[in-house]
Amino acid sequence: MCQLLGMNCNTPTDIVFSFEGFRRRAGLTGRHSDGFGIAFFEGRGVRIFRDNRPASDSPIADCVKQYQIKSLNVIAHIRKATQGEVNIENTHPFIREIWGENWVFAHNGNLKDLPDMSESFCQPIGSTDSEAAFCYMAEYLKNRFRKKPTEMQIFEAIQDITKELAAHGTFNFILSNGEWMIAHCATNLHYLTRKAPFGKAHRIDDDGVIDFNDYAKNGDKVTIITTFPLTKDESWTKMENGGFVFFKEGDKVAEIIGVAKETADDGTL
Amino acid sequence: MCQLLGMNCNTPTDIVFSFEGFRRRAGLTGRHSDGFGIAFFEGRGVRIFRDNRPASDSPIADCVKQYQIKSLNVIAHIRKATQGEVNIENTHPFIREIWGENWVFAHNGNLKDLPDMSESFCQPIGSTDSEAAFCYMAEYLKNRFRKKPTEMQIFEAIQDITKELAAHGTFNFILSNGEWMIAHCATNLHYLTRKAPFGKAHRIDDDGVIDFNDYAKNGDKVTIITTFPLTKDESWTKMENGGFVFFKEGDKVAEIIGVAKETADDGTL
Repeated sequence: MCQLLGMNCNTPTDIVFSFEGFRRRAGLTGRHSDGFGIAFFEGRGVRIFRDNRPASDSPIADCVKQYQIKSLNVIAHIRKATQGEVNIENTHPFIREIWGENWVFAHNGNLKDLPDMSESFCQPIGSTDSEAAFCYMAEYLKNRFRKKPTEMQIFEAIQDITKELAAHGTFNFILSNGEWMIAHCATNLHYLTRKAPFGKAHRIDDDGVIDFNDYAKNGDKVTIITTFPLTKDESWTKMENGGFVFFKEGDKVAEIIGVAKETADDGTL
Repeated sequence: MCQLLGMNCNTPTDIVFSFEGFRRRAGLTGRHSDGFGIAFFEGRGVRIFRDNRPASDSPIADCVKQYQIKSLNVIAHIRKATQGEVNIENTHPFIREIWGENWVFAHNGNLKDLPDMSESFCQPIGSTDSEAAFCYMAEYLKNRFRKKPTEMQIFEAIQDITKELAAHGTFNFILSNGEWMIAHCATNLHYLTRKAPFGKAHRIDDDGVIDFNDYAKNGDKVTIITTFPLTKDESWTKMENGGFVFFKEGDKVAEIIGVAKETADDGTL
């Protein structure tokens, strides 16, 4: 299995504080050492960094840290391979063009017996179940709408195709087109929104501390979505199985959920 | 206009010697300062680095230099914007999935009045003529063949679609699927193949010197394709207008050409 990290905000934000804890789970505080990737939206474009080395000691991850890229939407993934070899083509996040936009997708889980896509318009390149599922989703969306529909039509269509794919196994994912971020929880996904009044946060993985008052200004909203909480003194919301959230500019715009369960500091790794 | 650099080899090779001269043309020895990108195939996967800062002083380009990635196929591009703003989504090389492979494309030239693609399956994300042309090519190829055809069928299909696109303006490009590299010359493209007996080479842009005997072994074949020659003491072949070359494992496998013209050290910048 793998771990996911997403960030959606209303002001360009540096993800380094969260990523530095997250990447330790790739070999130091967790065993997700089979490569990593991180994608930063910049306007309609994406900068993506991948490595098949563990994120905790990858020079590419060091480069990401040094460059301190600010972005409104970021998706990162550390891999513990279940299907497919450890190589670049099997490294999340995956990208496809949909309706003239970059869509970025990362998955945690395991899907079996997916439909054959060898003659599809969108075909997987690597051998993971995750990329195949994303291609199936892309093909479905492009066939259902020739041009980009409204956001809520997109959210609804993603729920429909997700239910079909989730019948094949465990399907936690984070997805973004650079404007919004959608998360679906099958087993484990948590989120929180940082906004005024800002406080301090301590990282779970290495006790790193930050006071967001030193970086954020009134009105800033930064949502972090991740498999397991990254800080020990903030209140993370655990998503329910089968739940969906739709974030835009750091705000939760829509949600499909059974019963929301608040957890603080569950710290499970 | 822009400049292109491609490398196709039979052994994983580090492109740093060529890229260090090439990137100087982004602000120091040339005016191609509107961003850069470089894509390295690694198996079926691609590592891609892009920046909207000039390649000559980009920290991302420094990271590429330090990491010394070895690859069989590399495509790089330094941009002098003609159409589209200076931003990440307009930065070459562009990538699309075709028949379950990553295809990487970089263009030098200017195309006008391309067909509307707003309801196509493959749509451009940025606002360049280059990405639109590549999407048009991708859509054409996927419609002509549902599954990957033979290499020579691909080469023939690319000639057909290129002739259609070249009617819209200047269309020099380099294209690779990670197995082969195809170049098309409209105005300026040069190539050479380095193989035994190896010698020394002096870079045009900064007088950097290398002795390939220190790095290469008998049997190695490394082809470099670029807009204008990068070294002053090697024999570069200038492609003819309308010409195509197909390289695989460092060898020229096929060529469509009028009259080949050998030039040594023309050094035009």
